Amino acid sequence: MDNIVAFGEILMRLSPPDHLRFFQASSFETSYSGAEFNTLASLQNWGLETQFVTKLPDNDFGNKVISEISRYRVGQKYIAKGGTRLGIYFLEKGSAIRPGKVIYDRADSAVANIEPGDINWEEVLKEAEWFHWSGITPGISRAAAQECLRACRVASKMNITISCDLNYRSMLWKWGKEPKEVLPEILALTNVILSDLATLFKMLGKEKIDPDYSMPETLGDYYEEVLAKCPKLEFLPTTLRYSKSASHQKIGGIMFSAGNIVTSEIKEIIPIVDRLGTGDAFMAGIIYGLSQEWDTQKVLDFAVASSCFKHTISGDINLASLDEINAIMQGDLSALVKR
Amino acid sequence: MDNIVAFGEILMRLSPPDHLRFFQASSFETSYSGAEFNTLASLQNWGLETQFVTKLPDNDFGNKVISEISRYRVGQKYIAKGGTRLGIYFLEKGSAIRPGKVIYDRADSAVANIEPGDINWEEVLKEAEWFHWSGITPGISRAAAQECLRACRVASKMNITISCDLNYRSMLWKWGKEPKEVLPEILALTNVILSDLATLFKMLGKEKIDPDYSMPETLGDYYEEVLAKCPKLEFLPTTLRYSKSASHQKIGGIMFSAGNIVTSEIKEIIPIVDRLGTGDAFMAGIIYGLSQEWDTQKVLDFAVASSCFKHTISGDINLASLDEINAIMQGDLSALVKR
Amino acid sequence: MDNIVAFGEILMRLSPPDHLRFFQASSFETSYSGAEFNTLASLQNWGLETQFVTKLPDNDFGNKVISEISRYRVGQKYIAKGGTRLGIYFLEKGSAIRPGKVIYDRADSAVANIEPGDINWEEVLKEAEWFHWSGITPGISRAAAQECLRACRVASKMNITISCDLNYRSMLWKWGKEPKEVLPEILALTNVILSDLATLFKMLGKEKIDPDYSMPETLGDYYEEVLAKCPKLEFLPTTLRYSKSASHQKIGGIMFSAGNIVTSEIKEIIPIVDRLGTGDAFMAGIIYGLSQEWDTQKVLDFAVASSCFKHTISGDINLASLDEINAIMQGDLSALVKR
Amino acid sequence: MDNIVAFGEILMRLSPPDHLRFFQASSFETSYSGAEFNTLASLQNWGLETQFVTKLPDNDFGNKVISEISRYRVGQKYIAKGGTRLGIYFLEKGSAIRPGKVIYDRADSAVANIEPGDINWEEVLKEAEWFHWSGITPGISRAAAQECLRACRVASKMNITISCDLNYRSMLWKWGKEPKEVLPEILALTNVILSDLATLFKMLGKEKIDPDYSMPETLGDYYEEVLAKCPKLEFLPTTLRYSKSASHQKIGGIMFSAGNIVTSEIKEIIPIVDRLGTGDAFMAGIIYGLSQEWDTQKVLDFAVASSCFKHTISGDINLASLDEINAIMQGDLSALVKR
Amino acid sequence: MDNIVAFGEILMRLSPPDHLRFFQASSFETSYSGAEFNTLASLQNWGLETQFVTKLPDNDFGNKVISEISRYRVGQKYIAKGGTRLGIYFLEKGSAIRPGKVIYDRADSAVANIEPGDINWEEVLKEAEWFHWSGITPGISRAAAQECLRACRVASKMNITISCDLNYRSMLWKWGKEPKEVLPEILALTNVILSDLATLFKMLGKEKIDPDYSMPETLGDYYEEVLAKCPKLEFLPTTLRYSKSASHQKIGGIMFSAGNIVTSEIKEIIPIVDRLGTGDAFMAGIIYGLSQEWDTQKVLDFAVASSCFKHTISGDINLASLDEINAIMQGDLSALVKR
Amino acid sequence: MDNIVAFGEILMRLSPPDHLRFFQASSFETSYSGAEFNTLASLQNWGLETQFVTKLPDNDFGNKVISEISRYRVGQKYIAKGGTRLGIYFLEKGSAIRPGKVIYDRADSAVANIEPGDINWEEVLKEAEWFHWSGITPGISRAAAQECLRACRVASKMNITISCDLNYRSMLWKWGKEPKEVLPEILALTNVILSDLATLFKMLGKEKIDPDYSMPETLGDYYEEVLAKCPKLEFLPTTLRYSKSASHQKIGGIMFSAGNIVTSEIKEIIPIVDRLGTGDAFMAGIIYGLSQEWDTQKVLDFAVASSCFKHTISGDINLASLDEINAIMQGDLSALVKR
Repeated sequence: MDNIVAFGEILMRLSPPDHLRFFQASSFETSYSGAEFNTLASLQNWGLETQFVTKLPDNDFGNKVISEISRYRVGQKYIAKGGTRLGIYFLEKGSAIRPGKVIYDRADSAVANIEPGDINWEEVLKEAEWFHWSGITPGISRAAAQECLRACRVASKMNITISCDLNYRSMLWKWGKEPKEVLPEILALTNVILSDLATLFKMLGKEKIDPDYSMPETLGDYYEEVLAKCPKLEFLPTTLRYSKSASHQKIGGIMFSAGNIVTSEIKEIIPIVDRLGTGDAFMAGIIYGLSQEWDTQKVLDFAVASSCFKHTISGDINLASLDEINAIMQGDLSALVKR
Repeated sequence: MDNIVAFGEILMRLSPPDHLRFFQASSFETSYSGAEFNTLASLQNWGLETQFVTKLPDNDFGNKVISEISRYRVGQKYIAKGGTRLGIYFLEKGSAIRPGKVIYDRADSAVANIEPGDINWEEVLKEAEWFHWSGITPGISRAAAQECLRACRVASKMNITISCDLNYRSMLWKWGKEPKEVLPEILALTNVILSDLATLFKMLGKEKIDPDYSMPETLGDYYEEVLAKCPKLEFLPTTLRYSKSASHQKIGGIMFSAGNIVTSEIKEIIPIVDRLGTGDAFMAGIIYGLSQEWDTQKVLDFAVASSCFKHTISGDINLASLDEINAIMQGDLSALVKR
Repeated sequence: MDNIVAFGEILMRLSPPDHLRFFQASSFETSYSGAEFNTLASLQNWGLETQFVTKLPDNDFGNKVISEISRYRVGQKYIAKGGTRLGIYFLEKGSAIRPGKVIYDRADSAVANIEPGDINWEEVLKEAEWFHWSGITPGISRAAAQECLRACRVASKMNITISCDLNYRSMLWKWGKEPKEVLPEILALTNVILSDLATLFKMLGKEKIDPDYSMPETLGDYYEEVLAKCPKLEFLPTTLRYSKSASHQKIGGIMFSAGNIVTSEIKEIIPIVDRLGTGDAFMAGIIYGLSQEWDTQKVLDFAVASSCFKHTISGDINLASLDEINAIMQGDLSALVKR
Repeated sequence: MDNIVAFGEILMRLSPPDHLRFFQASSFETSYSGAEFNTLASLQNWGLETQFVTKLPDNDFGNKVISEISRYRVGQKYIAKGGTRLGIYFLEKGSAIRPGKVIYDRADSAVANIEPGDINWEEVLKEAEWFHWSGITPGISRAAAQECLRACRVASKMNITISCDLNYRSMLWKWGKEPKEVLPEILALTNVILSDLATLFKMLGKEKIDPDYSMPETLGDYYEEVLAKCPKLEFLPTTLRYSKSASHQKIGGIMFSAGNIVTSEIKEIIPIVDRLGTGDAFMAGIIYGLSQEWDTQKVLDFAVASSCFKHTISGDINLASLDEINAIMQGDLSALVKR
Repeated sequence: MDNIVAFGEILMRLSPPDHLRFFQASSFETSYSGAEFNTLASLQNWGLETQFVTKLPDNDFGNKVISEISRYRVGQKYIAKGGTRLGIYFLEKGSAIRPGKVIYDRADSAVANIEPGDINWEEVLKEAEWFHWSGITPGISRAAAQECLRACRVASKMNITISCDLNYRSMLWKWGKEPKEVLPEILALTNVILSDLATLFKMLGKEKIDPDYSMPETLGDYYEEVLAKCPKLEFLPTTLRYSKSASHQKIGGIMFSAGNIVTSEIKEIIPIVDRLGTGDAFMAGIIYGLSQEWDTQKVLDFAVASSCFKHTISGDINLASLDEINAIMQGDLSALVKR
Repeated sequence: MDNIVAFGEILMRLSPPDHLRFFQASSFETSYSGAEFNTLASLQNWGLETQFVTKLPDNDFGNKVISEISRYRVGQKYIAKGGTRLGIYFLEKGSAIRPGKVIYDRADSAVANIEPGDINWEEVLKEAEWFHWSGITPGISRAAAQECLRACRVASKMNITISCDLNYRSMLWKWGKEPKEVLPEILALTNVILSDLATLFKMLGKEKIDPDYSMPETLGDYYEEVLAKCPKLEFLPTTLRYSKSASHQKIGGIMFSAGNIVTSEIKEIIPIVDRLGTGDAFMAGIIYGLSQEWDTQKVLDFAVASSCFKHTISGDINLASLDEINAIMQGDLSALVKR
């Protein structure tokens, strides 16, 4: 499998250097990223062929994003041009007991105002084998939600595997509907969902739950309830994150598939260089592993290792080679200098 | 006179370092500025008391702007809080034959959505002696235009001197009205207008003209036509800018007042450190000179010197002392090291 | 209570970037701070009204300090101008097992040469409810010590609460007297003293002690002895710092008041961004808590949380909101990204 | 025409920041460029389709170069991998009367050791309409010279237009042959040669000449002599550079074609941001103009304007849009801020 | 003892700033270092007299290295000039679970092509009391290996103490011989060898071993076997490194001498600023200790403390004073700010 | 002649980056320099042997200065250690019409408090052939003035050539005497004085004059008057500086010797990188030229070229090779890239 398409938004990320707070910054480090694109950049880096679909303003920043996508060799030929602005997010990195902070300034972006016909999904997906979306996109605007649904319907009709990183952001969803009014229809078409169970239940409009991941054997009923709502679901991986501080994280994973549950060892990363994009790195790991038709344990272990490695890299994108992730997966955390 | 109030918007300015283009930047230098605030910062620095009025979002960036205003000791006690975002502008500085470039991203800012009652102008202006606005503000949105008119009406009723820097920006005025439908009413209340005649005619809805500033004696009729529309107008200064390149500028001035015209010597600045805010520095010079009740020649010469000096300073704000401007005004351009 | 005055010195801080040693630096990061001012900046940020009193040279650096004070919205209207220089301190930040290093270059600063009459304390304190000083100031010079005493006498006569952060610095006190010849008289007027007991005994000219803070019940006699010398003392908080390395600190607190002793939980911070100013952040927490008339436990817990949070912030000043400190106080150290 | 292939080398460029000399630098700014690639990057940016052919080491820096090529959307699918190192050049930028300085460290690069069969030129050129090389490449090594000849022979057989920027570098050509032993055979196949006449005569092994470009009518015999050696030559453009100082350049051009000579106006650029790559920008202008089938005057004027604009841009690559070059070509050097 | 000579190579070190990967870097931090020079720089800093011997290209970078050597006051009067290039190494610093990465680009450096007669060893060593080399040098090239042997033969004949840091680098030794064909002859002349036993066995062409340093009493036979091959060997120290992650290291040591074995306490450093040069700092500690004729336990403890301290310093050179190392040696790891 | 000794002070220079004003700076670029040392650094770079004599505090900054001196290979073995602080100067670089600004913070430096006996001049000068001082040193303090006189007396007695750069700084001379009370005695011992005539007259306590350097033939009487006061004077060079702006300077020179006057062509430098140290570069040129026993015209031309070149270099020290200065001296200002 090597033709993966994703739809989503790329934002300009503006972040004070070093450990400075917004109040202190007289400059911002600038990069361009988005959950779905970050995932594709990893996959392309690992040797798969990818296409990213979005809408960009027809100005210097739209061009800049095209260049950034190309820099990771991700395809960009189906991107629509138009609208007025590129969305922005401001990131203040945390440290030790001080939390990181995100301020979104993404209203009215080109993607938020995407229009039917901007993307010809039949054309985009004609050679695709996989379609990926994330829960961020339908949270942006009604138009983005509709486009996301449209894409999934086409993909589903073409029997293309659909994956989703549920990525719930409470600061989005200001456009008039709640997730549970929108997402169930799209999730029902989706084959792979990365989410914790509590969030997924919430998104599906179900009751509040508090699953105990330390006892996987107690989770079966939850998974069954999800399957009832998401009949196409084949894989349901979950990132298990234990946040000791902004500089100290522990990452593990659990994955349900065809009635079986596998869990992965928990790894510790200290200190953290950049936490953003570690979920996207997990998602990329899952897609890559499935594309290689590995067994579910290996798929999950690879995703956990990918996510762990990302914590050591600046920016949102997991610049890790397959060799580097394999070394982590095999338990070598000693990080001896290669020379 | 020492109580000067201005109303306007402060934007976050994001500019690539050195001579980099947007395409090349991996960081932006960050500062906070706006035409009317820049003018007040100079006046406060020169010893007058000032108050800046605006509306700011109630988040880290709103707080940051409060702090920046305070850093220049400009008053901020009448600022309204609310709305969703701080406006942004991106600046790519030019060099030699390459023009600078501004990309505005200021739609839906807190000021653009200002509401009647956010500012109590009777309260704000109760001790003021001068009110300053610029043509940028009514170009932002209907709400901002209405607030600007409201402020001028109150100021006029209280017999406060009103000044305006006409500052026409073709990239604004997207909200449904043209300047000539909006500005004449406000300009009719204004006592000091900084503008070139051609732009002023356009803003007043009059015919297109091409005045020849090298022959001041030919300009009389134009000034009379303006007076017919702006009966309160006492001073009409104009910045004369001769742009040889992005790095090489010549600045002079001309001012009409009570039937008389004075002109100022043209000064050359090469190389330019930062062109932004040089008009605001001119405006500050005019207000300061008038506040000192200098003769019109000295007022104009001071404004020209202030604007010239600003070209050598990074950022939008003219960090020049009175002594420094006086030296330029008296023709000392040799810039010997002070030690 | 919302009118807090402090007297002290602001220094220029020059610190090599990243982890560089003085030997390696080809640039210094520059900021402006001082123990008493740092404390006020926090209090103003949390909503109290403050005034900082000092003497500054009448040059660009004096003006810069005025601007920096204003940036935190701390009042500066009673600052005297004169003298020849701004004091400087050089800071080499430590890392892991390498200690940080401070080199003072503050002799003959404007404050060190302050003269009687530079500050009119009756005027300064006429609306004040609280006066704060630190043990650094009398260590600078005879003149500064005398001014500090003068201020406390006026404050005491006006029944203003007086607080002190004892802040003993062995590199100061070169001017001819020892602390125990100078401090007892000032401490006798003071209501709140932040100090550990051993240092306080030393400053009061008493015997060397080695109190065991892990057994608070054994400390009673020490407190009684202090009270004998400091009859106005109401609160005696102590920061308990366990330094594991330059990058790893544990912070707790203990406070004596009216015969009672409260202790606070010990919190761990790793890695440290900047240790400077963490004592000032503790002091600010104590003053804030007392100003809110909280019970002593809450006052102490807030001070500990404030100090802990400061370790994660670059520079000497605790840029922490009340919400952020409350979260730490309530034990949430997980530092999840807010988005 | 829109399928342009070039062959050459990409080097890592290491340059001290600001105006620092090598002796002073504690960091180098890093970019990746090469004469032929720089030319393609402009052409791709202006809308043509391009492919760059080279050999790169199979390590992190080879991958980085692939990413940099992709960032400009230039094609890289025919690049060979192998060899041991990426060539480097160190650049100390000059200023005013201080010359810039280049230190090459490019021996034994992957391209210098290219082997027959690394590139399948029949495959590479099968859809190409234009092939571009520069005189730098045969100067690197015997192997590179042979590969260059091989490429030109295939291109010539396939009736593809061949262009060359002669780019003589005295610091190259250390591999055992002189240019005049190597270049004539390749130039004999070439249709467009960018060079001054004196250098071209030297490269062709002809006598030393000193042509007077201010009297184009005196140049006819020289051009005829060149044609005698280069029977396929259709266009012979020359950049006329008048270097007043490292910060002040004047650029014009002259072009011979089919017996006619056109000259272009001389333009002045002051100050210079970066002189490197201005010849490549000229070359790109010539190729673009010819691809558009413009008349020779317009082609030359466009090339001059492209080269002038490049002087204002940091790095080796001309990040100029068609609109920006057209404005210069039409004589607008005032560089007013676009806002 | 205070005249120490070392022979080796100085490389330009190019390292991305902060935690960036090679792929992300748009600049490199630049320094100049080499194993043997790093060792001398420490010794000179601690008060011994040193001379560094190498060969440098006669260009700006050769001059720069002379200046860098002089900056540490290490002698440079015997350095040969010639050859074509300065060797380079690229360093990507690791973080947490991500390993650091070194890419060498040092082929054909001036030292690699050193010629007999470039250095007059009788002259160089005429006042020397100690000669130091490292296993890197013979790994560079046949010429460098021969020069190293030549130096040791002269030193040995002159009864000068010879020390070696074995420093095996698998990425070197590409010049046609294996270490075991080259090193035994040089090691047979050497009095102090810093190495772990397994590597030393390998270099001596002996069998693969896996010594258990936690049971020093089991190591005796290994040491005897080494002595059989290295009859002049007096001291055989070993750095014991326990790498928990790129940011977390534990360092101890063990030393064999005259039949006795001493071990040093293991110390922990977290976080690591820069791991490079920590072995050189250990070596410097051993030489310094032996020069002071301390007992072996103190020598080893000092070397361990020196190496530990180096982990907190940026760059390859241990900028630590004797006082700072003594504090670590005595177990004070609390790193309290000195002020 | 190759043993040149100079006495003076080295200061820490702190300068905002780019074109920032003191008010804007959040960092300072740091370097270490002083008029006399700058001169020696050039001479050493050109192949002469030099020794710098000063007094430095015995702390990290004193050590840093030793290292900086060594970096230029200037000798430092006679430097005294002691005192409390290193002097500082803050430099705000000017631009175009904005003057540069120096704020001295050098009171009470180690040199200012130098004591008799700190330097053993007989020892220092025993192998010297030249002694250099500048007018800055006696302006620092009484002690420095006395030491300067002491050195000159010893040098004079030993028949060592004495040179002086008069370097009048109005911000110095605060210690109780005027220059004319101090300098005549030292100048009477001096053989080479770099100064303009008006300043020299002032320093000698003579009448105010306004010499016309464009008419050298009118200057004879002035030179005679100087000779009457300075009987040992052999060469009296003057830098002719025409400051068009902070970014645009013209430099020429004139020199009187043995009744003859030579003048040098005036050269133009635009833009200026750093004006500081350009007088020291001129002085170095004079000393170097005289050391080579060139004719006076060549000596002067070399000094002018040296000073011109320095304007293009960041920092106070003229990092120019002999070849580079010769090219300027021979009139090649085109600054073509060397490659």
